Amino acid sequence: MYFGADYYPEEWPRQRWHEDAHLMADAGFNVVRLGELAWALLEPEPGRYDFSWLDDAVALLHEHGISTIMGTPTTTAPPWMVDLDPDVLRVDENGQRMVYGSWGNFCLNSPAFRLRSAIIARAMARHYGGNEAVIAWQIDNEFGVFDRARCYCERCAEAFRKWLRERYGSLAALNKAWGTSFWSHIYTRWEQIPIPRRTHTKHNPGLLLDYARFCSETTRSYLQLQAGVVREEAPRQPLTHNFLAAAYTHLDLFALAAELDVAGWDNYVPNARWVDAALSHELFRSLKRQPFWVLEQQCSYPQWPPYANLERGLARLLTYQGVAHGADGILYFRWRTGLIGAEQYHAGILPHDGRPGRVYEEIRTIGQELRQLEPLLAGALPRAQVACIVDYDSLWALEFQPHNDSLGDPWSYHRPWYRALRLQHLACDFVQPAGDLSPYRLIIAPALAVVSEEAVRNLRSFVENGGVLVLTVRSGSKDVHSRMVDKPLPGLLAPLAGATVREFDSRPAGAEVAIRFTAEEWAEEEARAALWFELLEPEGASVVARYGSGLYEGGAAVTWQPVGRGGVLYVGCLGDEVSERLLPALLRRSGVRAPVAIAAPEQVEVAIREGPAGRAVFLLNHSDAAREAHLQGPGEDALTGERLNGEVVLGPYGVRVLRM
Amino acid sequence: MYFGADYYPEEWPRQRWHEDAHLMADAGFNVVRLGELAWALLEPEPGRYDFSWLDDAVALLHEHGISTIMGTPTTTAPPWMVDLDPDVLRVDENGQRMVYGSWGNFCLNSPAFRLRSAIIARAMARHYGGNEAVIAWQIDNEFGVFDRARCYCERCAEAFRKWLRERYGSLAALNKAWGTSFWSHIYTRWEQIPIPRRTHTKHNPGLLLDYARFCSETTRSYLQLQAGVVREEAPRQPLTHNFLAAAYTHLDLFALAAELDVAGWDNYVPNARWVDAALSHELFRSLKRQPFWVLEQQCSYPQWPPYANLERGLARLLTYQGVAHGADGILYFRWRTGLIGAEQYHAGILPHDGRPGRVYEEIRTIGQELRQLEPLLAGALPRAQVACIVDYDSLWALEFQPHNDSLGDPWSYHRPWYRALRLQHLACDFVQPAGDLSPYRLIIAPALAVVSEEAVRNLRSFVENGGVLVLTVRSGSKDVHSRMVDKPLPGLLAPLAGATVREFDSRPAGAEVAIRFTAEEWAEEEARAALWFELLEPEGASVVARYGSGLYEGGAAVTWQPVGRGGVLYVGCLGDEVSERLLPALLRRSGVRAPVAIAAPEQVEVAIREGPAGRAVFLLNHSDAAREAHLQGPGEDALTGERLNGEVVLGPYGVRVLRM
Amino acid sequence: MYFGADYYPEEWPRQRWHEDAHLMADAGFNVVRLGELAWALLEPEPGRYDFSWLDDAVALLHEHGISTIMGTPTTTAPPWMVDLDPDVLRVDENGQRMVYGSWGNFCLNSPAFRLRSAIIARAMARHYGGNEAVIAWQIDNEFGVFDRARCYCERCAEAFRKWLRERYGSLAALNKAWGTSFWSHIYTRWEQIPIPRRTHTKHNPGLLLDYARFCSETTRSYLQLQAGVVREEAPRQPLTHNFLAAAYTHLDLFALAAELDVAGWDNYVPNARWVDAALSHELFRSLKRQPFWVLEQQCSYPQWPPYANLERGLARLLTYQGVAHGADGILYFRWRTGLIGAEQYHAGILPHDGRPGRVYEEIRTIGQELRQLEPLLAGALPRAQVACIVDYDSLWALEFQPHNDSLGDPWSYHRPWYRALRLQHLACDFVQPAGDLSPYRLIIAPALAVVSEEAVRNLRSFVENGGVLVLTVRSGSKDVHSRMVDKPLPGLLAPLAGATVREFDSRPAGAEVAIRFTAEEWAEEEARAALWFELLEPEGASVVARYGSGLYEGGAAVTWQPVGRGGVLYVGCLGDEVSERLLPALLRRSGVRAPVAIAAPEQVEVAIREGPAGRAVFLLNHSDAAREAHLQGPGEDALTGERLNGEVVLGPYGVRVLRM
Repeated sequence: MYFGADYYPEEWPRQRWHEDAHLMADAGFNVVRLGELAWALLEPEPGRYDFSWLDDAVALLHEHGISTIMGTPTTTAPPWMVDLDPDVLRVDENGQRMVYGSWGNFCLNSPAFRLRSAIIARAMARHYGGNEAVIAWQIDNEFGVFDRARCYCERCAEAFRKWLRERYGSLAALNKAWGTSFWSHIYTRWEQIPIPRRTHTKHNPGLLLDYARFCSETTRSYLQLQAGVVREEAPRQPLTHNFLAAAYTHLDLFALAAELDVAGWDNYVPNARWVDAALSHELFRSLKRQPFWVLEQQCSYPQWPPYANLERGLARLLTYQGVAHGADGILYFRWRTGLIGAEQYHAGILPHDGRPGRVYEEIRTIGQELRQLEPLLAGALPRAQVACIVDYDSLWALEFQPHNDSLGDPWSYHRPWYRALRLQHLACDFVQPAGDLSPYRLIIAPALAVVSEEAVRNLRSFVENGGVLVLTVRSGSKDVHSRMVDKPLPGLLAPLAGATVREFDSRPAGAEVAIRFTAEEWAEEEARAALWFELLEPEGASVVARYGSGLYEGGAAVTWQPVGRGGVLYVGCLGDEVSERLLPALLRRSGVRAPVAIAAPEQVEVAIREGPAGRAVFLLNHSDAAREAHLQGPGEDALTGERLNGEVVLGPYGVRVLRM
Repeated sequence: MYFGADYYPEEWPRQRWHEDAHLMADAGFNVVRLGELAWALLEPEPGRYDFSWLDDAVALLHEHGISTIMGTPTTTAPPWMVDLDPDVLRVDENGQRMVYGSWGNFCLNSPAFRLRSAIIARAMARHYGGNEAVIAWQIDNEFGVFDRARCYCERCAEAFRKWLRERYGSLAALNKAWGTSFWSHIYTRWEQIPIPRRTHTKHNPGLLLDYARFCSETTRSYLQLQAGVVREEAPRQPLTHNFLAAAYTHLDLFALAAELDVAGWDNYVPNARWVDAALSHELFRSLKRQPFWVLEQQCSYPQWPPYANLERGLARLLTYQGVAHGADGILYFRWRTGLIGAEQYHAGILPHDGRPGRVYEEIRTIGQELRQLEPLLAGALPRAQVACIVDYDSLWALEFQPHNDSLGDPWSYHRPWYRALRLQHLACDFVQPAGDLSPYRLIIAPALAVVSEEAVRNLRSFVENGGVLVLTVRSGSKDVHSRMVDKPLPGLLAPLAGATVREFDSRPAGAEVAIRFTAEEWAEEEARAALWFELLEPEGASVVARYGSGLYEGGAAVTWQPVGRGGVLYVGCLGDEVSERLLPALLRRSGVRAPVAIAAPEQVEVAIREGPAGRAVFLLNHSDAAREAHLQGPGEDALTGERLNGEVVLGPYGVRVLRM
Repeated sequence: MYFGADYYPEEWPRQRWHEDAHLMADAGFNVVRLGELAWALLEPEPGRYDFSWLDDAVALLHEHGISTIMGTPTTTAPPWMVDLDPDVLRVDENGQRMVYGSWGNFCLNSPAFRLRSAIIARAMARHYGGNEAVIAWQIDNEFGVFDRARCYCERCAEAFRKWLRERYGSLAALNKAWGTSFWSHIYTRWEQIPIPRRTHTKHNPGLLLDYARFCSETTRSYLQLQAGVVREEAPRQPLTHNFLAAAYTHLDLFALAAELDVAGWDNYVPNARWVDAALSHELFRSLKRQPFWVLEQQCSYPQWPPYANLERGLARLLTYQGVAHGADGILYFRWRTGLIGAEQYHAGILPHDGRPGRVYEEIRTIGQELRQLEPLLAGALPRAQVACIVDYDSLWALEFQPHNDSLGDPWSYHRPWYRALRLQHLACDFVQPAGDLSPYRLIIAPALAVVSEEAVRNLRSFVENGGVLVLTVRSGSKDVHSRMVDKPLPGLLAPLAGATVREFDSRPAGAEVAIRFTAEEWAEEEARAALWFELLEPEGASVVARYGSGLYEGGAAVTWQPVGRGGVLYVGCLGDEVSERLLPALLRRSGVRAPVAIAAPEQVEVAIREGPAGRAVFLLNHSDAAREAHLQGPGEDALTGERLNGEVVLGPYGVRVLRM
């Protein structure tokens, strides 16, 4: 278990380094992130390097038992980069070029930027590749932040056209794929194709989807470039990257994670959205089906709204939530609040004045606890019987065409289902449509809009072998070029669903419709749906629920069709209650077993890691008041050794780790 | 009566065309719009034409009894247009040039664009001018959408200066007209005059008004260019255009309609704003004092908020509202929801999958009904005894200087009066200030800010011949250069009003003031006014109402002066209730007779067409609940033949057409 | 006492000038502002002058007893300025250059603009320097309006770099001062330094602070340039400028006022924010410790929201508020509502039609009253025993880093304290940190973030000599380069405070925390704090108040440390109630005496001028309802001669001036 924080020795006087190292060691740190913002100090002018100060910091920390995850510093290029390429700064959607003076705002298609990135990465890797204190590399920092993945400069426009030319071969193929006969956009020269800057109304959906792919691919190839040179020079040190939360959809995380050895992310999700945080944790665990790292874990006040401090206990709660979902590394951001630069008001474990205080003590406690828990957690991971499908083509297609102001975030279709699973204490993996589905009994495929024949075969095979598949609104509506399919929806998935969509209707938030289930075996209570409603026509399937009001009153809203040894539920509406009501029946039908016998109120999260040393059950109280959970069997508090059964009390934001 | 939809055969496989034609014919269609988006297919490269596919579509549809309104496709120029003129794309108010990839975003002052527009229009007109299946031409598409009428490019700046030079002759004249001594804007070279891009605070009102005129004139001359070549080649086919609703004020609709044979518009006004829809219908009827066409009638969900489907019956209600106000053509948009392009989520009569369903059935019913009603409606039109004055100079002057955040739409001054007329079931024509007023008994001139001597003479003559004229706030406040007049307001209209404005006060929405009438013959109840208050000083007029509260408590708010055989009411405040209370007395004084003896609740619209076959009375229930109207005399349901008297029930969104 | 308005004779026909002069004289005017918008008429082309019309206007007015404050017209350059320098127009934060057609949008670093400004100023000063009718000069108009002080053009970028080079000498010094090692911004060529246009996230705080200083200094040097030439040519006429209210913080008013003889400002603060208006009045009095002028006093409806007229009596109330705080000149804006130009809807004393009405009568009454009061007010000024520290470095540092959406206005930290003083009827001076503090007994230094050793010495000396000093949140947190200090806060001020800040927390508006005082001698009731909370650790100081709830419940919120013969209160939280509760104890401890024995409700402002002829006590009812004040001693109404004691009634917006 890695436990630590970033450290920016370049910001502090050398005489302070010792005290910091001592305080870190005392807090149980065994790792820090170094170097990621230090390009200008490491390479003060192109080709002149100075690693001596960093060598000293690495060595000093190592003497205190603290290893280093070394960051390539490419997110913060020095001013001389602009001398090398005056157009290196990103251009935004309005066509405006950024000025120098921030970070992460460089065009990833700039040849100079790519070249100098590879050179500094190689120089660092060569220097630290054999250093035993350096145990991993973080390539760059927060790909995808600030729309940085999407540049709209002329060079990117050219690169986009080149990418299209390779993809389509001919303009005829591209025109057909995009359906450019609409609005007379039939391109007759490649140079005519625009980069989709903001314009009147909207761009062609095919162009937009390809642009999203191109941008994600641009970042992937930039990551690959750096990963390649670092691997050459430092073959024994694993590579990671600190991505943003799942809700940042500009990058295909599966594609990018394939270039890495360990998946990582930066967790600034507020506790009020703890279900979203859990989703991100499980997504990052799923990327490589391995433990992941939280490379930046918020520990105090952030530099954005609400700016407020974390309440007492929250840093601990958020830490354990990560661990519970499979994090084997937690690094806080940041060690000490900075005195210089634009992030002076982003708090660290230590305040500006460097005096250890309340937050430091909280972190130190966590460090002690984690050391105690390590034997129990070693080799342990959540075991998912359920998976959700994630497909970036679908997320992008829906991002560009939400068709509802409340569905702007394309993860909106996943959330109600993920939440229902979480409330049942079930681990959930995320898989791609063509991925290996065999480990699972239940697959939920929310809004799988873009669907290929291969994906359909994979899902059919899963179902025929006894799995239960849930399809939802907007499924199968798009081909791979983001054209609407001309078949009745869910298009290629219709045979699996045994039903088609006769009509759909999208309503503003607040326009709720009652969903009535046709049999108690499905659900006993009715549910409220909102935002998206599809009127289903069973073609083989049986009706599971009907609309109790609204435009489609009396019409089918949910259908079920047995297929092979399994079956397919098509859910033609959206809503937390819809997913919550249907899930128990789905678990019964798919044979998913309850993971642990604990009854807990909604705000108490229950998550489990299983491994050689047994089962660690995490009770996480996300409420600001005390809450009770009820064990339906004996357990032992893994930290206090207390034997427990029945009622267990958790204080505000309280955490219990049980051996059960 | 034309009944149909757009059709984009270029989006569908040929084998589908037959089925579509059959379904259209079965729905009672006799017309479609074709060609308006097809430039790239009709002229794949400059000067090379391919009409064959369109010929086939026209012929096939004609075989099914369906004629064509042929659209010139100039709103969607192909990518090669940008090759011809790299600056053909519009520049917005911030000085940012649009990228290619949308539609309707071309600079109408681009010589290349004008030339190629004329060439494609001529080629099409030459090809289809003798085709009997083609019964009319739609020139371009939705002039004025997306601010497209107002381009801020350098070429437009030059054209604007040239236009000014022709208008003013000398800079001395221009400087005087605009009052450029304010802020030291005295121009000494024509090149100094800016195009009014966004700047600190505001531009000179004279410059803004002239820019608005120049932009409207630019679109008019572009329309004239196309209309000219089409008329030369296809002299027997009438010309139309699908404008936007009245609330889009960038174009002087009277000036543009003068280039056309039939006025037309696209109706996407939500039912919640049905009074606005009625206003637009009546405005488009007034433009040519003839029946008009609704060239795009919404029939299902739109691609903008709220995105929701139309409720059952709404497509029918909205169709009949158009017919009731004089539409002799209703074409829905669109036939089938598109599978390609940026409007994939704008619904058609047929859904994406092409299967006729609920909406198709609703449209088919309407088609049957309209065929049945045709004998009654033939040659019939609403007969207006009342008219509202519309003056684009005034609308533009007030658009640029609303002086109240709630008066940003300059039609705000018309709406309370139009609404009061509508609630009295009265048809209303819209006329220009110098237009023929002789057909009317009552003229309402809301906020006629810019007023000429000629207009004053016209209005005086109307009143002296027995008419009743209503003047309202802000009247006569501006000269033709948008300078404030130095006379007491209403300026040139003061002698007619017999009163002057001592002060005025503008208040945010919500600050309501009671208006108390001085005599029951004017109104029995008091009314609430808001937004704009003028303190009047009678100079010959008598006081009709006084302020009951607020800054002007006790002061005159409304005055009446008999003039010749008629009289003038000056209403110094705004508000639905003010107009509603005053209208009955105005009708009595002007001798306007009740058009029909029906009592109906507020949400049931009553509109009448009169013609050779008698009188068709439309009862239109804009409410989502059943409503009752009361006939004070016998009538016959023109669709069912049912004889009615007294109470008539209308279902939710229900329609009745009565022969009375 | 100067009393008058602006006058723009160039907007009106000559035959009207006589009537205007007569009406002005009749209203008691003795001064007008002339010339400030007339550059194009005074210098129709570069180097050709025409002062004849202005001479006539000056002379005519003087014949009516009305002197002139002559404005240099440089805020409104003629179009020929753009011919001289095509880049003279300001560039905004997005890098967009303004178009010509407004005012005040010129780059103050344009050599041509500076040159032509000096030339026109010299020409006017030479012409009018000996004219006895001209009694003062207003240099330019409203520096700092519309962000005009901050231009982002390339020329400003170069000038900024030059300014930095002079300030820092070397890039090494600059890099150290700004802490550019953060984000690798270490500059190796001066040309790399960006002008801080909008970018991803934020610029370096040191760069931003220096840019704010550079911009303020640019305006100061531009003012100095004009002031210099005017002084050379017109040495006997004092110089003034009409600044905006205190809340416009782009300019260091102390630095700019040093170039002037009389401080002046334009008062458009709505009555609802009367405490802010009082603050501005006292700030402008403090700039030169002399009477100041209100060069534009709103008298009717403005051209911005809410657009509404002033209620009856409000123009009088706002006038007397200025006089009460030390204004010896009140000039309304504007004389007559304009007929031409973009400010047609900004009301004057006379309406568009020029007929004197309600507003004119109100102004005339004020004129008569002021003449009557002049003997009492001559040489009289408010006498402040209390001062607030104002430091523009701190205001700018906090402007760029509010760390709370509700603290965007950096005056937010002053307001609660100023309000509490105002409710106690106490005059308050504003002084700079290194200014002369000896006249005061109580000094409040809200959020003095940037603090120098010199300032600390000055404050210490004040306290040691018996003064009471109040320090508040965020004090001492920054060095002069806007780096956070590495000491425990309040940094250099900690020894004075005798306490340090252990933590701080910023919360959104609405998150209120109870503050409980430890002794009744400090306050009897608890207070609500919000937005910013600091947890204090006494190091010598005693605890005055503790948090009663929230994250810091039980911790110290306010401390007191005796120092020398005085003492220091550190207030670690924000809130009107906090300041209000603490003020009485602070007054007792500092020996500040109650200025007058009057009990008045919150909305009745009490302000006092003392001079050779005695004491004038102003009672100003800012409420729209009648209010009572209670004199605890005899007084005499200075206007009516009525002898008063005990209860005094003020009508809505009523004013009384008492001789006491």
